[in-house]
Amino acid sequence: MQEELTKLKTVLAEVMDLDAASALLGWDQQVFMPPGGAGRRGQQLGTLQSLSHTKFITPEVGRLLETLNAEIGSLDPDSDDARLIEVTTREYRKAVKVPPEWVVEFAEQTTAATQVWQAARADNDFSKFQPNLEKIVDLRRQYADFFAPYEHVYDPLIDDFEPGMKTGDVQEIFGALRPQQVELVKAIREQNQVDDSFLHQNFDEQKQWDFGVDVITKFGYDWQHGRQDKSVHPFTISFGVDDVRITTRIYPDFLNTGLFGTMHETGHALYGLGIDRALARTPLENGASLAVHESQSRMYENLVGRSLPFWEHFYPSLQETFPSQLGAVGLDTFYKGINKVEPSLIRVEADEATYNLHIMLRLELEIALMDGSVEVKDLPEAWNARMLDYLGLVPDNNADGVLQDIHWSGGMIGYFSTYALGNLVSVQLWEKILSDIPDIGDQIRSGEFDALLKWLRENIHRHGAKFEPQELVQRVTGSKIDSAPYIRYLKSKYSDIYGI
Amino acid sequence: MQEELTKLKTVLAEVMDLDAASALLGWDQQVFMPPGGAGRRGQQLGTLQSLSHTKFITPEVGRLLETLNAEIGSLDPDSDDARLIEVTTREYRKAVKVPPEWVVEFAEQTTAATQVWQAARADNDFSKFQPNLEKIVDLRRQYADFFAPYEHVYDPLIDDFEPGMKTGDVQEIFGALRPQQVELVKAIREQNQVDDSFLHQNFDEQKQWDFGVDVITKFGYDWQHGRQDKSVHPFTISFGVDDVRITTRIYPDFLNTGLFGTMHETGHALYGLGIDRALARTPLENGASLAVHESQSRMYENLVGRSLPFWEHFYPSLQETFPSQLGAVGLDTFYKGINKVEPSLIRVEADEATYNLHIMLRLELEIALMDGSVEVKDLPEAWNARMLDYLGLVPDNNADGVLQDIHWSGGMIGYFSTYALGNLVSVQLWEKILSDIPDIGDQIRSGEFDALLKWLRENIHRHGAKFEPQELVQRVTGSKIDSAPYIRYLKSKYSDIYGI
Repeated sequence: MQEELTKLKTVLAEVMDLDAASALLGWDQQVFMPPGGAGRRGQQLGTLQSLSHTKFITPEVGRLLETLNAEIGSLDPDSDDARLIEVTTREYRKAVKVPPEWVVEFAEQTTAATQVWQAARADNDFSKFQPNLEKIVDLRRQYADFFAPYEHVYDPLIDDFEPGMKTGDVQEIFGALRPQQVELVKAIREQNQVDDSFLHQNFDEQKQWDFGVDVITKFGYDWQHGRQDKSVHPFTISFGVDDVRITTRIYPDFLNTGLFGTMHETGHALYGLGIDRALARTPLENGASLAVHESQSRMYENLVGRSLPFWEHFYPSLQETFPSQLGAVGLDTFYKGINKVEPSLIRVEADEATYNLHIMLRLELEIALMDGSVEVKDLPEAWNARMLDYLGLVPDNNADGVLQDIHWSGGMIGYFSTYALGNLVSVQLWEKILSDIPDIGDQIRSGEFDALLKWLRENIHRHGAKFEPQELVQRVTGSKIDSAPYIRYLKSKYSDIYGI
Repeated sequence: MQEELTKLKTVLAEVMDLDAASALLGWDQQVFMPPGGAGRRGQQLGTLQSLSHTKFITPEVGRLLETLNAEIGSLDPDSDDARLIEVTTREYRKAVKVPPEWVVEFAEQTTAATQVWQAARADNDFSKFQPNLEKIVDLRRQYADFFAPYEHVYDPLIDDFEPGMKTGDVQEIFGALRPQQVELVKAIREQNQVDDSFLHQNFDEQKQWDFGVDVITKFGYDWQHGRQDKSVHPFTISFGVDDVRITTRIYPDFLNTGLFGTMHETGHALYGLGIDRALARTPLENGASLAVHESQSRMYENLVGRSLPFWEHFYPSLQETFPSQLGAVGLDTFYKGINKVEPSLIRVEADEATYNLHIMLRLELEIALMDGSVEVKDLPEAWNARMLDYLGLVPDNNADGVLQDIHWSGGMIGYFSTYALGNLVSVQLWEKILSDIPDIGDQIRSGEFDALLKWLRENIHRHGAKFEPQELVQRVTGSKIDSAPYIRYLKSKYSDIYGI
């Protein structure tokens, strides 16, 4: 068995190296690449991804997994090796069903579509992007069909991001959440609005950058194994547990974007940096799922970064950094301002109370696109109808509506729900953290984040992708992914702020 | 034949994509990578390079080349396809002789050695680096033996950088040059030294950067297909003809490093960007050789950038940029200062008159290491003895002596001579340019560089690697690589400056 394991790990190391190279090509593309390099970069990414795929799906890997699965009973089921065999088998069984030609075409089509989407958004012209999106939906249907039979055509897409979850699971979770969240937002809208005008002033970009760096250094971000750059769309990317980088975007006239974006990405990066080195160069050197990943970013962004104890510690230094802008703004006013709830058109600008409604809208449309109940050409109309239902708004133009997100142009259908699931998981974990570290609030109030990071490393980070998301959440919190803690959290937080 | 060509080009495109990915990993390593990422990056590079190698050396590629060579007579011998078959065959015949295990070990050993070299240089301790260098020399001897029989054990190493050239060729070229260059340097040393103290003042780094950007933009560097970053060791790197980047290093207390380094790298980059797009994703999408590449960088750095006409145009704006430092320094003084000849210990700081002597020293030591007439442990002594002979100097310490260059730690033995050959070729080409564009001096005096770039594109750049270096130089200038024009140029230039 040891011989097969070693052979398997050798192949997996090569695959992971190829994937890390792809990741670097993608990072460069978004951060530094000169525009003229785009076409060639698409070809290079296509080649690397195709090579990684074909290296992984060889009959040899299949034979190794067959032998290993026959003997897996002799291993501790929670051991790294047992979980490696299971996760690799799961990924192998999926991967062999996807023809390399599809992978190449998908890479090429999504590279092209991302460029077209950028132009279409700039020109506010959905019809430009429509043929590309139709092609992508078509490719995603082909993709789902590689995994037929399925309960729902959307199942194979969710499974790529949330292993083990089904369309029915997310529909059930969000079905319970949506009416409560819509009701909460309505109740908040009936209260007096809080003031956040002080957030919309001129804030020197370098000072914003430096303040963010100070905060995330205290969070424990390790600059020996990471760096921060600017990009249009902030993201976190891992080239292995020894090199996990973040990007941020800073607006000179609005404080929140850089501030909370930086904390958000750091939550992701701490996860990537906390994975047990024993899992390096294997498929376990990943987060458990995107939702679990998002639970880490949202925790640092919202449960820590938008909390009162956090600002009891950091607000004096923020005031010192921006004395003319914030010197006369009290802590309570500031805290309410950064937690202002106001339905808006743009997901990435949404507050905690409305964010999940943006996601549910997209999730429902994705399911409808996949099952054919909505056609791509009718998407703008379907989008706007739901915006009105959930948030009481209708966009003037598609750039602020259906064209706002990059995801679909990159072929990422099935991805959005992970954002909302991440919110739910972040609060489930937070309730457990509160019970395990009762003075966590005091620690944050003192600018101490070590116990928090230690807890997350021990309970979440170090496991990498060993456990499926539902299993991991169950192990740590005692229940599967559940919206009840989240709605409790929202109600409690906004009762204080809005007096509902 | 067309079918085989298409199949061959498909494989070559994948190989080139892998190599471009390796290049990006290397670029990142030198420019942006956090230090903790180094170990993993070495593994990733090892995997990519090994994959590229094994993809190229398949029996299938051998069969395709066999068929294509049998029918090559039907093609125009100068056509892209005929040259592609020839160059690919040459590289294939070399590559199949190198076992993949050697490639992996070489990548790992050189990654490790580069780290050790950095520490050894910092500690001024050659003995630390000695075992690594011994291993590398050993690996390079193994490498040479893959190509036995050879005329000289050093031949296979030179051939990697200068296809078709032999140890005897370079020994002949430099044998003719060395006594003349030693004599010239001696004659200069007997004259009154020129003043260059004004170059050693404080020069704002951003202003230096901006001035360099202005110059290379006028040279024709295309920012849509390139970018400039900072790195400890400046370099140029191509990810294909659509994305060729440079790095530079700026010293706040010395003007030359940033200024001429930026022009130097731009010469390389213009070559990479000028290759015919029809050659993209094939082994022809490269320079003809490192010497030909260096001829381009040295031309922009020295024949253009250190010429009087260049500064007749740019000096007023440099004075405006640094009025307190240069306002009182006349053009003639400035011109002499940037062309000051002074034997020094450090190659990268050497002037035009002494530079080749640094190279000849290294070339002779490399040949001696390879043929066993000098052992690694005796290298510092052998180095210092030659420094005394050629330049009249002996370093106080090995950091300023044998440890100064990164090349050997990266396994690059056979590389150094290309710098000196590049100097020779740059002047051979320049004599031809002077005859084809008689008013080139006036153009440069007017800040016009388009005709020069057009000439280089037409005669050198567009051909990529279609021709071996000797053939290319012969085609363009009518003679093979020859030191006579170079020594003529040095004598003429320094007669004016030093009155010899």
